[in-house]
Amino acid sequence: MDHADWVKTEFQSLVDSHGYRLTPAEEIESRIARLKIRMNEEGVEALLVAQKTDCFYLSGTSQDALLYLPLQGDALLLVKRELERARAESPLRAITALTSLRRIPSLIQEHTGKLPGVIGVEMDVLPAKDYFRLVSLFPGARFADASEMIRRLRAVKSPFEIALMRKAGEIGEKVYHHAKHVLKQGMTEIEFGGLLEAEAKTYGHEGLLRVRSYNYEAYTWHVLSGVTGGMVSQSDSPMGGLGLSPAFPVGASRKVMQAHEPILVDFGICYHGYQADETRMFSIGRMPGKFVEAYHACKAIHDAVLAQTRPGADCERIFMNTLELAEKLGYRDSYLGPPGLQTRFIGHGIGLELNEFPFLAQGQAYPLEEGMTFAVEPKIVFPGEGAVGLENTVVVTRDGCDILTPLGQEIFEV
Amino acid sequence: MDHADWVKTEFQSLVDSHGYRLTPAEEIESRIARLKIRMNEEGVEALLVAQKTDCFYLSGTSQDALLYLPLQGDALLLVKRELERARAESPLRAITALTSLRRIPSLIQEHTGKLPGVIGVEMDVLPAKDYFRLVSLFPGARFADASEMIRRLRAVKSPFEIALMRKAGEIGEKVYHHAKHVLKQGMTEIEFGGLLEAEAKTYGHEGLLRVRSYNYEAYTWHVLSGVTGGMVSQSDSPMGGLGLSPAFPVGASRKVMQAHEPILVDFGICYHGYQADETRMFSIGRMPGKFVEAYHACKAIHDAVLAQTRPGADCERIFMNTLELAEKLGYRDSYLGPPGLQTRFIGHGIGLELNEFPFLAQGQAYPLEEGMTFAVEPKIVFPGEGAVGLENTVVVTRDGCDILTPLGQEIFEV
Repeated sequence: MDHADWVKTEFQSLVDSHGYRLTPAEEIESRIARLKIRMNEEGVEALLVAQKTDCFYLSGTSQDALLYLPLQGDALLLVKRELERARAESPLRAITALTSLRRIPSLIQEHTGKLPGVIGVEMDVLPAKDYFRLVSLFPGARFADASEMIRRLRAVKSPFEIALMRKAGEIGEKVYHHAKHVLKQGMTEIEFGGLLEAEAKTYGHEGLLRVRSYNYEAYTWHVLSGVTGGMVSQSDSPMGGLGLSPAFPVGASRKVMQAHEPILVDFGICYHGYQADETRMFSIGRMPGKFVEAYHACKAIHDAVLAQTRPGADCERIFMNTLELAEKLGYRDSYLGPPGLQTRFIGHGIGLELNEFPFLAQGQAYPLEEGMTFAVEPKIVFPGEGAVGLENTVVVTRDGCDILTPLGQEIFEV
Repeated sequence: MDHADWVKTEFQSLVDSHGYRLTPAEEIESRIARLKIRMNEEGVEALLVAQKTDCFYLSGTSQDALLYLPLQGDALLLVKRELERARAESPLRAITALTSLRRIPSLIQEHTGKLPGVIGVEMDVLPAKDYFRLVSLFPGARFADASEMIRRLRAVKSPFEIALMRKAGEIGEKVYHHAKHVLKQGMTEIEFGGLLEAEAKTYGHEGLLRVRSYNYEAYTWHVLSGVTGGMVSQSDSPMGGLGLSPAFPVGASRKVMQAHEPILVDFGICYHGYQADETRMFSIGRMPGKFVEAYHACKAIHDAVLAQTRPGADCERIFMNTLELAEKLGYRDSYLGPPGLQTRFIGHGIGLELNEFPFLAQGQAYPLEEGMTFAVEPKIVFPGEGAVGLENTVVVTRDGCDILTPLGQEIFEV
């Protein structure tokens, strides 16, 4: 059978019957309309969107493609590989094959009748080599960094997106309940993490948590027990764990989990690209009082952040307030990491990527807006001993916030 | 306890007892010495290595750092976060804290007594924004693209590296044997893939397969059954599968695996950062003759590639020969994908990343060298019906090659 014919005739019924939900046209139209307002404000005549996640956000497909988005006129999706599948997945009208990067200007010319003078690209992720290649294709054009514009746009979620994040949170709840039955003394951190991952996938978890960076990765097998919870590593996180090797020095290790250790499980779920991040504490038998008390401090900080969360609240202020509270509770030197290695954020925006706007962090003096989603994660770290923490993903509502990760917040003792 | 003191006194015994093997000093010294030969040939006075994988290769640590490597004098590792752990993991002598990118020139000046005139950076992965930031720190210096130099160096593996890849291959063998017991009718592709992943992790599989690209990801849950094997997607691969959603349109889906379908399992293992990639065919009950015959054609092509593999053999020639053989065997229009979407490679270099040199591909006219490692993967695709394939990872030896993935090559019928 011809492959293109097969996609045209069979793809829709195949995806419908396998829980593969396409993005509605209104959703894409609304995103593009909001982006054009920002483009107009900043004097950007057109965007050339190259990064897969941004491209998916604005087109509905993750097929290998570049999106050309002029301020005036329709978007044009330039597909490098599977054209018919891109057409089946994206509600955009103008979708064409890109056989060589050299052809970009002429395809744009055909589509809009002219070439742009100011082109926005994602300079925070686009490799230098690719950037210079694009520059060479548009002599005379000025290139601007459109990363922040796109990232600010993506920070505010639609009801469609929030529903997918809520679904991710519901999957997380099932996985944590499953974890209570799986956790056994003598199991390694990585064995435990692997089994949670396998369970999550049966519910539609994609298995990866995308991060907007060429150097950072996020894993869902982030299980730290006792001493490994006290270790800092490559990630910008209060604790990183031991990991499996110096090549992957973050997350679960081959350490065997013991009774009475604090076992921290930081497990993110990704559903249809949208993430919900959460952390809970487990122990085999009773957890020592020192860690239980520290956990209650985390819970107090977590609750204080949620109490301040509403449209207009300042992200930096919320973070700074937690420093005061942590000190008052007696954790100045262990809150968010050991002295000298303490992180400077209490929350990170989340959605298609794990490091989105807003950041509830030092130096991030801007207000929360309705529809923003973030993970709040107070953690307390004792080097050589262990770590505790609590994390939930929330959405900012008209007058406060909703938790998207509905799991109970007690310590799970098995 | 003070965190730095803890790392200094306890880290070594902790990693020793948890299978976390550090890179020997001789290994790093040899890599740097070989790289300096290339730097000298190309007139690069110093490298500023930013990408995590390259940094790990040249320093032995993946802690958040930049590596400064002057042609004359010792390497200097500039650590952004966990300094003591970087010191514990890396055999390099000069390792110092980097509190701000602005400080790079003065730290280099202190270390070597001068600033370089020609600086090599990894322009294929370094984001444009980061590139311009580095350029601004060294006014007057010329920046060169050092990506290919580093990638060519990494293509030839040492005995230390080959041993890690062999270990990855041995883990793969265990996982595929486990798969025969796990596979059941009525299971979804993703459930099967998730269970294999969980099993692999218990043996030290890191769970991610790094790819040198900001837009491509590789998953180990690449399980395609029947119709999904006939689907092309975002990846540069003969078939991509359905995947779980348009955000992750590659790999296993929620499709239920049925009896008598070709079930393709393309599962890579990553051990201490080093990958071994392999593909095997499974079926529940007998696989239809059409797919069995196509599998035998893949096996014939696979064997023909290995028979030509030796130092000096031309990578493009090996690929072109497979086109002839596929046509002779009657698979011209299904070999490596459907017409119009056929990929143009039969093998890809592999190691710390999944897309390393050498590429046995069209346009890659260069010779194989002893110590190079690559995955050879003939695949045959029937749109609407399914796909078959065979894949192994091999190392080029003095007079031929060794297979690093020791698993039997029969179709696994359960």
